Amino acid sequence: MEPLRTVIVGGSGYAGGEFLRLALGHPYLDVVQVTSRRYLRQPVSFVHPNLRGQTNLKFSDPEHLEEADLIVLGLPHGVAAQNFDYYKEKAPYIIDLSADFRLKTLELYERFYGAHPRPDLLAQFAYANPEINAEAIKNANWLAGAGCTATATLLGLYPLYAQGLVARHAVFVTVMVGSSAAGAEPSPAGHHPERSGALRVYKPTGHRHTAEVIDYLPGTPEVHMTAVATERIRGILMTAQVFIPDGFSEQDVWQAYREFYADKPFVRLVKQRRGIHRYPDPKVVTGSNYADVGFELEPDTGRLVVISAIDNLVKGTAGHAIQALNLRMGWDERTGLEFPGLHP
Amino acid sequence: MEPLRTVIVGGSGYAGGEFLRLALGHPYLDVVQVTSRRYLRQPVSFVHPNLRGQTNLKFSDPEHLEEADLIVLGLPHGVAAQNFDYYKEKAPYIIDLSADFRLKTLELYERFYGAHPRPDLLAQFAYANPEINAEAIKNANWLAGAGCTATATLLGLYPLYAQGLVARHAVFVTVMVGSSAAGAEPSPAGHHPERSGALRVYKPTGHRHTAEVIDYLPGTPEVHMTAVATERIRGILMTAQVFIPDGFSEQDVWQAYREFYADKPFVRLVKQRRGIHRYPDPKVVTGSNYADVGFELEPDTGRLVVISAIDNLVKGTAGHAIQALNLRMGWDERTGLEFPGLHP
Amino acid sequence: MEPLRTVIVGGSGYAGGEFLRLALGHPYLDVVQVTSRRYLRQPVSFVHPNLRGQTNLKFSDPEHLEEADLIVLGLPHGVAAQNFDYYKEKAPYIIDLSADFRLKTLELYERFYGAHPRPDLLAQFAYANPEINAEAIKNANWLAGAGCTATATLLGLYPLYAQGLVARHAVFVTVMVGSSAAGAEPSPAGHHPERSGALRVYKPTGHRHTAEVIDYLPGTPEVHMTAVATERIRGILMTAQVFIPDGFSEQDVWQAYREFYADKPFVRLVKQRRGIHRYPDPKVVTGSNYADVGFELEPDTGRLVVISAIDNLVKGTAGHAIQALNLRMGWDERTGLEFPGLHP
Amino acid sequence: MEPLRTVIVGGSGYAGGEFLRLALGHPYLDVVQVTSRRYLRQPVSFVHPNLRGQTNLKFSDPEHLEEADLIVLGLPHGVAAQNFDYYKEKAPYIIDLSADFRLKTLELYERFYGAHPRPDLLAQFAYANPEINAEAIKNANWLAGAGCTATATLLGLYPLYAQGLVARHAVFVTVMVGSSAAGAEPSPAGHHPERSGALRVYKPTGHRHTAEVIDYLPGTPEVHMTAVATERIRGILMTAQVFIPDGFSEQDVWQAYREFYADKPFVRLVKQRRGIHRYPDPKVVTGSNYADVGFELEPDTGRLVVISAIDNLVKGTAGHAIQALNLRMGWDERTGLEFPGLHP
Repeated sequence: MEPLRTVIVGGSGYAGGEFLRLALGHPYLDVVQVTSRRYLRQPVSFVHPNLRGQTNLKFSDPEHLEEADLIVLGLPHGVAAQNFDYYKEKAPYIIDLSADFRLKTLELYERFYGAHPRPDLLAQFAYANPEINAEAIKNANWLAGAGCTATATLLGLYPLYAQGLVARHAVFVTVMVGSSAAGAEPSPAGHHPERSGALRVYKPTGHRHTAEVIDYLPGTPEVHMTAVATERIRGILMTAQVFIPDGFSEQDVWQAYREFYADKPFVRLVKQRRGIHRYPDPKVVTGSNYADVGFELEPDTGRLVVISAIDNLVKGTAGHAIQALNLRMGWDERTGLEFPGLHP
Repeated sequence: MEPLRTVIVGGSGYAGGEFLRLALGHPYLDVVQVTSRRYLRQPVSFVHPNLRGQTNLKFSDPEHLEEADLIVLGLPHGVAAQNFDYYKEKAPYIIDLSADFRLKTLELYERFYGAHPRPDLLAQFAYANPEINAEAIKNANWLAGAGCTATATLLGLYPLYAQGLVARHAVFVTVMVGSSAAGAEPSPAGHHPERSGALRVYKPTGHRHTAEVIDYLPGTPEVHMTAVATERIRGILMTAQVFIPDGFSEQDVWQAYREFYADKPFVRLVKQRRGIHRYPDPKVVTGSNYADVGFELEPDTGRLVVISAIDNLVKGTAGHAIQALNLRMGWDERTGLEFPGLHP
Repeated sequence: MEPLRTVIVGGSGYAGGEFLRLALGHPYLDVVQVTSRRYLRQPVSFVHPNLRGQTNLKFSDPEHLEEADLIVLGLPHGVAAQNFDYYKEKAPYIIDLSADFRLKTLELYERFYGAHPRPDLLAQFAYANPEINAEAIKNANWLAGAGCTATATLLGLYPLYAQGLVARHAVFVTVMVGSSAAGAEPSPAGHHPERSGALRVYKPTGHRHTAEVIDYLPGTPEVHMTAVATERIRGILMTAQVFIPDGFSEQDVWQAYREFYADKPFVRLVKQRRGIHRYPDPKVVTGSNYADVGFELEPDTGRLVVISAIDNLVKGTAGHAIQALNLRMGWDERTGLEFPGLHP
Repeated sequence: MEPLRTVIVGGSGYAGGEFLRLALGHPYLDVVQVTSRRYLRQPVSFVHPNLRGQTNLKFSDPEHLEEADLIVLGLPHGVAAQNFDYYKEKAPYIIDLSADFRLKTLELYERFYGAHPRPDLLAQFAYANPEINAEAIKNANWLAGAGCTATATLLGLYPLYAQGLVARHAVFVTVMVGSSAAGAEPSPAGHHPERSGALRVYKPTGHRHTAEVIDYLPGTPEVHMTAVATERIRGILMTAQVFIPDGFSEQDVWQAYREFYADKPFVRLVKQRRGIHRYPDPKVVTGSNYADVGFELEPDTGRLVVISAIDNLVKGTAGHAIQALNLRMGWDERTGLEFPGLHP
């Protein structure tokens, strides 16, 4: 098979850099161009030092894209939509890692982001969450990479909602997020002496990724999300509180998860009685494409605590997108995503 | 004034060590004995290296307590109750830092801890949370130090419940806790390579400190607590989700907090529109006795996110107890607790 | 005693902020003004959240300084020298925390920093290291705060050089430094995702603080310094390798340190045979004004490994300066510097 | 090609666990047994949670080893030597990851470790550092895995000594080491509240890995090593101070490194004028088998600061051993070691 000629636009950021790392190890992707205005003509390893010895690519000008099979857009929110007519001429397959085309419901976009620059394009994108949207992905040429906290939340909650295991309407979600999710641009909030050691609530209400959760969770539930910045660089821990209906047991919850994720290679159910690794922990999945999902039921109240953990840059961004691309192209879903993570 | 001759039983642990540090800087406390079986005859600074040059005390035998004015018990849960008849002969004032005498409701103790070894003593202890239990503290000789996550939760929620600002019955509490809360004993869960970088849900349901929150929050609400271990050594971040009743506004919430904490020197209301320190963060209060409390209201749903931050060893344990002692003895509440914390 | 009316110029940085924190707790200092161009009219606690409830001061304009007894300059290197004629009219006592007036030897300044804007002033400043320069400090109105890595190094090595305990000419110094030493300004190097977890050699050779060590160490030795950035926010660990002359023993080294630091309240000799706190560790002195100093002798080679640890913002900057001021004013050297640090 | 049937003895530790992770991804290794007394019959993922979904292996009894092609020993120092007659009957190829057979010079072993239990076996082992000992490795059936700090030091210094670029006899080495190097056993020194944030000199002199450096560096130089424990979990940063002979320049140093490492796929020369990644940093190589090596010359003194960085569990232990095995078996040296590390 001829590998896809791949161009990464916005390759100096963390999302684009992570896509680049994974693409360089992917047997069917051939990265021919990586762009960055700021680092023009610098080796990509100047910014991403892990790629020393992996590639001789240098950053080039985003105004002069090569013809390619696949364009990956790692741009600030809004930019992909504004320039989309240019990109779509350059390659048949497009993956946009921004929030521009993630939502199917325009009203939700407007409520959380404001006016959409290109609402006409929304319907042509497939939301690139392979666990819950595989059929659409297989039939789309344009993929919209999912938001990292949305992915952690959706993978934790989807089976429950899909199978009617939620009793009350509201779900309370707390996402604890690493610093890389805020991007590569230095800022007062990200300055090491300020951020290191912080446990900082940065979005008590109104987190934009809430829109995706509402849009894709069956039944349009009331989703209350609170986001906390943590010491980690990579990783999201999601905890959610819901109530299961009367008459249902832990066994039913197990079964819902087991069935839903039976053939999903990147979701692992983690729930042990003993040991220090009883529940999902983002430390364990760092660098990998796994989403670990677990839960605990409070027997006398029916409260179910759902726990999920992902690496925000892999399963939360670039790995998730490559998994969707694998699906779209008919390749093994796991291609290029084999790294299992480290211990300790 | 003659300082109180003070004996600390169990001084090699983190709670006892923190009490020792604060007592050494307290003008009305004179520490005459610190006990530890394991470190018998070692200088206290062998275990607590910050105390080098602060004191020449050595650990002595807990079986041979000196006569004192004040005994502070920093023992594993259950031990203080079992030996209480011995301790009460040795000094008129006793502070127990364990969970043994925290609850006023025996049923709650039994539900969360099992059978109580000395239920007869419960009524004679005052729960040592000076912000919500000042009158009882002023009239008690025996003080029961409050649990750290309970203090973070109670200080965040009490004004709302006291003033009828909670609409639905249930409250969802997430506590993110530093590693010192698990104590000084090495363990697989606390081994640095395993714990460092972990975001580990360790009590999704059934956290014992829930009992205190239920016991002291007005109206005995339904409290759902989930506890997460974080990278920090010290510190608790508490977030809680409640709904305020229809017709109430952010102004009403402000007023409830302002009134309740008007004359409480160690609670600071933290809620800024701008900057990186908009909400309470345990990093900011490390080493200090402050509890920072803030909130954000989701206007269209009435969901109120309450946020509080404390140092689990100071406001969560030893500092809180000294503040209660100050109150009991008629000293300025802030005596010996002046350290403001560091930035950055 | 009337407290000194104190003005802090450049109070939004880490050095100025730390001086402010300590001055607010100092019984003989009354901070009347704190300046910052960027945060004009903001409360100082907007930048330094630990000072909430400690003061109502707001940042004011550095162009309009009040008359004062003491001006403290926390400015970028070079600025204090350029504007010195303005400052010296405003107050009789001046503490400059920058490198502008630290060196007594102009040639060393020129070699490490370039041309000096005001060489005429150098001789009128006392280098504010109270352990090695007390007499000069007691007689000076203008104090030049010492560099943080220079202080760690000088306190570790001075007694050896003063007492002829160094055999070969060269000393090899490695300083491991926290991120706050690079200042409060966001930068790519200080961005949390980049800096967290890094062990980054940032000055293999040519570190500017080398100049101070050469200038103040007896005998002008050959000093080779390598500087490494670490995960810590605060703290410097200094290790130095020297050789003691033939015929000298560990006892002689002990004696040299003991005698030299006999009456120095902020230097602690740390050298234990057992336990986990056998040598100085910056973790232990965080927030305190202590410099811990220890050593180990390799018996068969005469190599002496000297180890020292300080908090770069306290003993390395603001606390050290206040200690010098205490000395100058005839106050107890420890005034306002009592905080012992935390464990754990 | 038939993969090697591989048995890992002592698979619950960090060295054995890392070998297991790499072996599971290695196309020519088939792990048939992993032993652990403590975790008998537990899934290996109970201890190594990153291996969930990677394997169904359970820990088995080290007394009942299966016949195999390769035995990997991840045992406490001394145990492999004592039981070696048992192991050597079980498989033709043996990799010992302990210090038992690393040294070729018995006197050095005795000086640093004491009496050797099986000195007769020393000569039959090849020291498994593929960059400096490739010929011996290709001809040996028994490989002795190199020590982690020794590998960091040797890879930094070997080209200089091999090519006569060191002027004075002595070299001063500082190794900054992550907590995983101390092993998986909980201990007071490794307890998170004590270890987190520590910069702890744990071996100022006498570090055992010094023996390997002396033994394998050409010319048996005087090696002075000081070891510091850092906040990292994985990683070693090594800095060394040497002097190059008069008349040599930076160009000569470059050339020595370039020539020596020309065909070594896992050593990268890292030395940039600009940017935040100018020198080797263990953060960059985490999880990878790379050793990054760089240097800076102090022009006027001839002092050369050599810097190297590795992951102690990969290039410092398991990856290095697999690289040697690849060499021994005639496979591509990089087989199974492709992971490039992460950024950020």
